[in-house]
Amino acid sequence: MNRKEFRDLASPAEAREAIDSLSLEGGIERVPLTDARGRTLVARLDAELDVPGFDRASLDGYALTARDTFGADEADPAALEVVGSVHAGEEPAVELEAGQAVEISTGAVMPDGADAMVPVERTDTVDNTGSNDGERTPLLVRTAVAPGDNVMFAGADVAAGERALGPGTRITPRDIGLLSALGIDEVPVRSKPRVGIVSTGDELVRPGDELDSDRGEIYDVNSYTIAAGVEDAGGEAVLYPHAGDEQDEMERVLRDAAAECDLVLSSGSTSASAVDVIYRVIEEQGELLLHGVSVKPGKPMLVGRLADSAYVGLPGYPVSAMMVFRTFVAPAIREAAGVPEPESATVTGRMGREERYGEGRLRLMPVGLVQRGPNAEGDGDAASSVDDSDNTPLVYPVDKGSGATTSLAQADGVVEVGPETDYLEAGESVRVRLFSPDVRPPTLLGVGEDDPTLNRLLDHLENPRYLPVGSRPGLRRLRDGVPDVAVTAGPIERDTDATELGGWTREWGLVVRPGNPDEIEGLSDLVDRDLQFVNRTSDSGLRVSLERALAGLADDRGAGQRELAESITGYDLGLRAHESPARTVIAGEADAALGLRETADHLSLEFIPLGEQSVRVFANPDRTAKASVRELETALAETSNEGA
Amino acid sequence: MNRKEFRDLASPAEAREAIDSLSLEGGIERVPLTDARGRTLVARLDAELDVPGFDRASLDGYALTARDTFGADEADPAALEVVGSVHAGEEPAVELEAGQAVEISTGAVMPDGADAMVPVERTDTVDNTGSNDGERTPLLVRTAVAPGDNVMFAGADVAAGERALGPGTRITPRDIGLLSALGIDEVPVRSKPRVGIVSTGDELVRPGDELDSDRGEIYDVNSYTIAAGVEDAGGEAVLYPHAGDEQDEMERVLRDAAAECDLVLSSGSTSASAVDVIYRVIEEQGELLLHGVSVKPGKPMLVGRLADSAYVGLPGYPVSAMMVFRTFVAPAIREAAGVPEPESATVTGRMGREERYGEGRLRLMPVGLVQRGPNAEGDGDAASSVDDSDNTPLVYPVDKGSGATTSLAQADGVVEVGPETDYLEAGESVRVRLFSPDVRPPTLLGVGEDDPTLNRLLDHLENPRYLPVGSRPGLRRLRDGVPDVAVTAGPIERDTDATELGGWTREWGLVVRPGNPDEIEGLSDLVDRDLQFVNRTSDSGLRVSLERALAGLADDRGAGQRELAESITGYDLGLRAHESPARTVIAGEADAALGLRETADHLSLEFIPLGEQSVRVFANPDRTAKASVRELETALAETSNEGA
Repeated sequence: MNRKEFRDLASPAEAREAIDSLSLEGGIERVPLTDARGRTLVARLDAELDVPGFDRASLDGYALTARDTFGADEADPAALEVVGSVHAGEEPAVELEAGQAVEISTGAVMPDGADAMVPVERTDTVDNTGSNDGERTPLLVRTAVAPGDNVMFAGADVAAGERALGPGTRITPRDIGLLSALGIDEVPVRSKPRVGIVSTGDELVRPGDELDSDRGEIYDVNSYTIAAGVEDAGGEAVLYPHAGDEQDEMERVLRDAAAECDLVLSSGSTSASAVDVIYRVIEEQGELLLHGVSVKPGKPMLVGRLADSAYVGLPGYPVSAMMVFRTFVAPAIREAAGVPEPESATVTGRMGREERYGEGRLRLMPVGLVQRGPNAEGDGDAASSVDDSDNTPLVYPVDKGSGATTSLAQADGVVEVGPETDYLEAGESVRVRLFSPDVRPPTLLGVGEDDPTLNRLLDHLENPRYLPVGSRPGLRRLRDGVPDVAVTAGPIERDTDATELGGWTREWGLVVRPGNPDEIEGLSDLVDRDLQFVNRTSDSGLRVSLERALAGLADDRGAGQRELAESITGYDLGLRAHESPARTVIAGEADAALGLRETADHLSLEFIPLGEQSVRVFANPDRTAKASVRELETALAETSNEGA
Repeated sequence: MNRKEFRDLASPAEAREAIDSLSLEGGIERVPLTDARGRTLVARLDAELDVPGFDRASLDGYALTARDTFGADEADPAALEVVGSVHAGEEPAVELEAGQAVEISTGAVMPDGADAMVPVERTDTVDNTGSNDGERTPLLVRTAVAPGDNVMFAGADVAAGERALGPGTRITPRDIGLLSALGIDEVPVRSKPRVGIVSTGDELVRPGDELDSDRGEIYDVNSYTIAAGVEDAGGEAVLYPHAGDEQDEMERVLRDAAAECDLVLSSGSTSASAVDVIYRVIEEQGELLLHGVSVKPGKPMLVGRLADSAYVGLPGYPVSAMMVFRTFVAPAIREAAGVPEPESATVTGRMGREERYGEGRLRLMPVGLVQRGPNAEGDGDAASSVDDSDNTPLVYPVDKGSGATTSLAQADGVVEVGPETDYLEAGESVRVRLFSPDVRPPTLLGVGEDDPTLNRLLDHLENPRYLPVGSRPGLRRLRDGVPDVAVTAGPIERDTDATELGGWTREWGLVVRPGNPDEIEGLSDLVDRDLQFVNRTSDSGLRVSLERALAGLADDRGAGQRELAESITGYDLGLRAHESPARTVIAGEADAALGLRETADHLSLEFIPLGEQSVRVFANPDRTAKASVRELETALAETSNEGA
């Protein structure tokens, strides 16, 4: 069979229709009341009994005949004879006659002959101590009551035959109260749709297992993420073992999943063999309804039937898989599970910067939100491209490229950009669909250098977000007006009008193997000896400091800086994160790495100091009054005092 | 020890403080990633590895040296030699030299020597079939690429040392994606607070068990309801067996719960002995912080410590217990569980009628909501006391009295009325705090006669609410402007300007034991013979028809209607719901009951017809265009056609 091409992409509406045409419903099951919360009732429940089942005293006091109290008041109480008592959970042993009363506790059965009750506070008992045996306690009733007073009649709460809960009710704790009152301990609910998840790909390793990066192994992101999404939508996720790319095995797993589940979701390897197996199984045992959707990300989506199960093939890239799942699959699972689409999960924001599209596909753009805070109407900084005159949040796209797994963890929701839209302007109003109604956008958005002290500092804030883009890109983004703060390390080349909140210093240098077996003493060793070095990328403040040090060494030697750099093996091999070079040393792939003392200590490596650099935190001048910015300033002041 | 009185009620703020002073936190536990959704991280997680862990091809195509493609385009492709292939999950077996390329699949490791890749769509392979052995495939590259193009570098997604998730993060499916990518299969989270639930009271029976109403038994509502509330708030509910009112047993259960849980909630019997036991255990093993709160419902609330556990005593009445739980306890459980307070769960509405308070306590008023629909700005009916000029929902109190268990199932949220407020006017704007953000107020609010046909009819609507208050009270409420529709049965005494939507007829008469052992033939038998009868309340349309029939019999006999009524034993014993009289016959407590043929059939009883009456559905004239009202009209038309 030939591999299919995405020649005729379906529209998103056609994809929805195709999925809607599948039946994901899992049938009906009976669950005990203790498990009923959040489940969806499939049948009307009518009351089969009266609640309460008897006329019931509403207070502690005396049951009596209302007529006996007529005319009674504080000054002229009615005198009655107490002929017994009834407690809650007891059958009354007495029947009242005129002039008699029965002591009764809240919730107890009204005895025959009584038609009202008087609370104990409105009565007195006459002290009868020392009276003759057999004489009953006299009771003074200091108020008049009408028939029915302080009595809850049988069925007053719920009456037999009443419609209690209708079909389709999503059971709340309050409904559980009603069901309990009716004595119902088991309810018929919609079964959760069983959703089988099959991740394919030889390169996938389950989290917790050992990873071999040289073989190109990566952790399987989709299985657990999609499973959590399935459960969020009210389904029951069933994880199948990795099928790898071996055809027989993949086919067996797909058939098992189709036999056991209402819906099978595959994702993973995009290898031709995997797609071929899926096609073959679908063609033999089902029907392919759709291949390819005009949406980005998510184009390579399959919809069909596998034996008696519905089937959706998700793209392998985690962000694409999750976006397609959320957009097309989760609503169908919710529908089948009877879980309502969450409401009020949209927010209006303004684009923090211009974005261009123009690919003619519906774009599902993961975005982050940042609130501008109390002085957003500040000085109207002309450099900012965004209108500051309102306080709607700023919206910025979160996109690390299609292979990225983490974009969504740094996003708050999605903006749908129609295929006809070529660009969104900075400041343009957009509707953000939050990932869920309880998404709380971060209190603080920071960008810039990565630093272990900063990582700890951010723990003082509730829900901060930090994008470690490096010092220079951080300052650039701060100037563009989106983040609240930017963090820089080392010398800053350009002036900034940002407000400095504080900072600390950090020791940088060379990170080498424990015990420093190569006896590296400084930069000169890297230049003069045959050592493998690992650098940081040029966005990093650490790299800038290294370059300055190298320039100093070049001056001392009367040599050119570039010449020295070229004599360092690996100088141009720049890694992105502060720990990555040091980890290359651990892996035995380098002799020395650019890094921080703190990183060396953390990873139990040796450290050769080359200098100190200051780390500085700058705030967007419009956001200095924002609560989180002030909290960060306070935390910074404490850190400086500790000398961290 | 003396029983405490509620002399000095604490303010709601003091009650909150007292609960906040208790520690409900359940410590820390490690959970597998599959169970991490919704849990709250207790520690920062930094990345311990680069994601991806290697330089990775982003597409299917060819890895090569960018320099070899410089200047290439469609017309003038670069010719390279393909020297091997790398698939995802494989370690590259080749190292590239100038002029060479390696076939590479998406996600595979970039081989040494390659610094970019070209997607397969921009290349051609020259057909080499029949060429000499050993000759390698020539590749034509029809585009120029720069170093790094179509490659995701190691750490570009997440870099080792980066702050991945901060403490306090409530883990979403997207976070599970990030954790999966980092290979983390277990996370440290806050333990769910264990909340022990102790319901006391000899009269309580667990749902599902047999109930003895003669002994005043009722189903235990609080245990399951509070348990569901605890789980909603992120706690783990532990149900303890009913303690009854026996002191030793109750003490043992309380001590067990305190030893095993972070918080013990008691509710149930308000008997003096129960309170005494709780006091004794608290005084011996803990501390009483507060007794009695100035709030209605919920005054009799206790806050304290029981051994190492926090303790809150809830009122016994289900509505009070739940209101106190929601207002004071649930926020503390959420705080301890790290579950954020749900946002956007408030709605502004207008009071549907005046309400008076003035008890000097904070009033927690359960309310229902009704949306007025599209023609709310209709004819400005002068009889309606509510301003129709906006479309905010109408708010009406739901209150069946303090013993009621079901009020909350018929309510959508709570209005807090401050102690200084004596009354709320009809039309006054109020803030309704919904029970949860996903509460959907009913699409239709109906009131009036209860009827089995109506119960089924309502199944055609999504989420209707029906309050079976009887025919006459239903019409009265419709005139007051709150409900959408009212349902009447039998003759209507007063004119109404409401719009009739449709109706059906029902057969009414006497419901008697199977086989009609008393050979009852009609009303005359009730008047003339010594039979026990059960009537309906005077609000019921059925009762009105019965009275007319009795008037007819009186005319025939030349007797007075009241005289005949007095000769029927039980004529004044009116039950509220349509099934309740018939169930009295089943219980052997009556020989004949007023009821419907349908009820007799449903309960397998015999039916003696006395007449037919029409059931009519009337719509609020302002709501005839409301979608649910029109759906009901359609359903009614179908019912009439079926002749139901």
